[in-house]
Amino acid sequence: MALVVVGGVAAGLSAAARARRMDPSLEIVVLEQGPTVSYGACGLPYFVEGRVREARQLIVHTPEYFRRERNIDVRTGAHVISIQHPRREVTLATGERVRYDRLIVATGARCDTSRMEGARRPNVFTLHTLEDAERMRGFLRDKKPRRAVVIGAGYIGLEAADALRRNGLRVTVIERSRNVLRREDPALTAAVRRQLEQHGVELVCDVEVRAIAADRVADVACDMVVAAGGFKPNVELAAEAGVEVGRSGAIRTDDRMETSLRGVFAAGDCAETMHTVTGRPVWIPLGTTANKTGRVAGANAAGGRKRFNGVAGTTIVGLFGMGFATTGLSIAQARAEGFSPVAARIEAGVRPRYYGGGKTTVELVADRATGRLLGGSAIGEDGAAGRINVIATALEARMRVDQFEQLDLAYSPPFATVWDPLLIAAQQLMKEL
Amino acid sequence: MALVVVGGVAAGLSAAARARRMDPSLEIVVLEQGPTVSYGACGLPYFVEGRVREARQLIVHTPEYFRRERNIDVRTGAHVISIQHPRREVTLATGERVRYDRLIVATGARCDTSRMEGARRPNVFTLHTLEDAERMRGFLRDKKPRRAVVIGAGYIGLEAADALRRNGLRVTVIERSRNVLRREDPALTAAVRRQLEQHGVELVCDVEVRAIAADRVADVACDMVVAAGGFKPNVELAAEAGVEVGRSGAIRTDDRMETSLRGVFAAGDCAETMHTVTGRPVWIPLGTTANKTGRVAGANAAGGRKRFNGVAGTTIVGLFGMGFATTGLSIAQARAEGFSPVAARIEAGVRPRYYGGGKTTVELVADRATGRLLGGSAIGEDGAAGRINVIATALEARMRVDQFEQLDLAYSPPFATVWDPLLIAAQQLMKEL
Repeated sequence: MALVVVGGVAAGLSAAARARRMDPSLEIVVLEQGPTVSYGACGLPYFVEGRVREARQLIVHTPEYFRRERNIDVRTGAHVISIQHPRREVTLATGERVRYDRLIVATGARCDTSRMEGARRPNVFTLHTLEDAERMRGFLRDKKPRRAVVIGAGYIGLEAADALRRNGLRVTVIERSRNVLRREDPALTAAVRRQLEQHGVELVCDVEVRAIAADRVADVACDMVVAAGGFKPNVELAAEAGVEVGRSGAIRTDDRMETSLRGVFAAGDCAETMHTVTGRPVWIPLGTTANKTGRVAGANAAGGRKRFNGVAGTTIVGLFGMGFATTGLSIAQARAEGFSPVAARIEAGVRPRYYGGGKTTVELVADRATGRLLGGSAIGEDGAAGRINVIATALEARMRVDQFEQLDLAYSPPFATVWDPLLIAAQQLMKEL
Repeated sequence: MALVVVGGVAAGLSAAARARRMDPSLEIVVLEQGPTVSYGACGLPYFVEGRVREARQLIVHTPEYFRRERNIDVRTGAHVISIQHPRREVTLATGERVRYDRLIVATGARCDTSRMEGARRPNVFTLHTLEDAERMRGFLRDKKPRRAVVIGAGYIGLEAADALRRNGLRVTVIERSRNVLRREDPALTAAVRRQLEQHGVELVCDVEVRAIAADRVADVACDMVVAAGGFKPNVELAAEAGVEVGRSGAIRTDDRMETSLRGVFAAGDCAETMHTVTGRPVWIPLGTTANKTGRVAGANAAGGRKRFNGVAGTTIVGLFGMGFATTGLSIAQARAEGFSPVAARIEAGVRPRYYGGGKTTVELVADRATGRLLGGSAIGEDGAAGRINVIATALEARMRVDQFEQLDLAYSPPFATVWDPLLIAAQQLMKEL
């Protein structure tokens, strides 16, 4: 039995490693088109910032490691140009063919700049691969740019803005939609805007960038540009082979991460998953999901029967020391999904006043008809990750607000208030139900 | 309609405030035997430490506030000595009688030193009321003691030890049982012991203190003693009136916090609650539970129909900057409750290595027969509260490990690892099931 994995970053290597654990005799080949595998893509902004000194610190394992320790044949510079599923073969750009019994497509996503004029200028960057980040870092060092425009206020765009600002640049973020972080959530957008502006980063929403001039983007003067918008799943390779693509634009999968072609699995940023709250297929490309879906795809490709439970879309972004975390649906998203949502938003101290400590903002969204929790957000210097994770756990459990309101959460003055802000928000929300 | 509440700290005042919201016309009297109401009892160790400068910072509201803003008659120095339920009356030590239609017993708990010889010496302290803490602080200032013994390694004892050590004293904690923090959990005890010893606090387990000599306790020389063991619920007043006491020794309640006498409710440290995991009555006195059960008792005493969902027993204690958090059952406790438990304990980084950050220890306990999560612990300088809260939420939802393993938890390098330590522990535990 031979397993071929296309893509050697988070999903691909999680899949390969899991398949190996399931079946020590499986022949496993990972084909990665880039020069590097197994790197922490989410760490790239921190390398640009300078906090991470060397790009190689982001590399988790080398191809040699996989060969030696896991008996997995990881090939870099291996660009797959087509899949011939009837013959169970993939073809590389070199013409070489690799046979498979099971195939995992983990081709990731890209920032699509193909329709943006000027995107190939030497001062225009994406922040997707280790090489992208090294090129950007080299530019910062050699050209000492003073003004940057970041196109796209998703998490990569905002983290890039933070990293560039910490390098002393003036930064403007230009976002196509009205809201940041791919979430229709005006309150969240307002909070992010406030934090950015307090740290000297300008945020411009509702402006679509169609062209990048030599010294400006959409009337903003700059000497470097980060293109971090217009993400698209890399589905072309699979689609040309007959794999079905879902309405989200990503590869359709079942709850075992198998595609419409039997024996072909998809995982990571190129694949759809099921949304925990709506039960519908979604495309929410995140590192956590890439690792989890890779693991499930790997287990099933090796003959296991592992189900993937879906995603709540939990994210957190750190901007100048403040955490902005969301999960599930915002009130606007919930409405668009056919719920009749109500929300409560509170600000509260994270510790008793006498102990000292900052504040946090918590929002909870629930369905008026059923009382079921649908989503929420947590913003704060302290504890935003822990709080959003509690909400995400409640979403997975399909918890109602009246149950959430009484959660037995930890309290001690150095860590929390006796009524955690989550519970205060839930009490508030109970009044709306 | 008249509501009388016996006890004016966490549970009593939560109950009174909630009852007032439910029914603006209710006559509400709160009878507190001490001189102060509505103080943050959990903050007392931080006042002893010196972090909280003034005792009055711990006071949330004054009796005047309750009278003026809430129309609640809060009387201090009002010592109730008996309840005559057939006549719906309580009698104060002064002989005064107060009539009620509904009664809420929120008499709290005490450190029972009645059978400990020498407990009334002037250098022996409890840490239960604001006055206790002020007396201890005065002693530290005036007598400049150099060696302290703390009797009892529950959370108050350990927090007192931390506070005294930070005041420069040599501190020995003597605990009657084999384990600390009222939890049969040798791994937790070992971790606490390590942290205490690294900060110069000695921990002696398995030693029962029967007498306090003038200058020593159980062979440990000292010039001051904190009695923080042998906690008992204050049930005598209610029991003498015919209220049923449960096997735990605390007042038996139903899920509306009503006692065996109709119209008499109990809340806070004197009352039993239902354990989320076992479904059995337990006595787990905690500030969080006091506030919650007070709120439920208050709502129901005012004619509402509010259910209390029970407790997982979630706690966190900070010792010299490290958080020790637990919830649900330890493996030994689970075994004693009739489960066939398995556990996994892992240590993992709280952030990616390239970003930097400490480690955390996470333990998860599950039932082999059903795969259901039964409890866990989280120890670390960072994120222990957030992680234990996720476990507590999963316990409330009766989640299985295979579901927990795929939770969509937040990830971004400044906040977490792509596989949160909770998920790594769950993966480990899946192998045991």
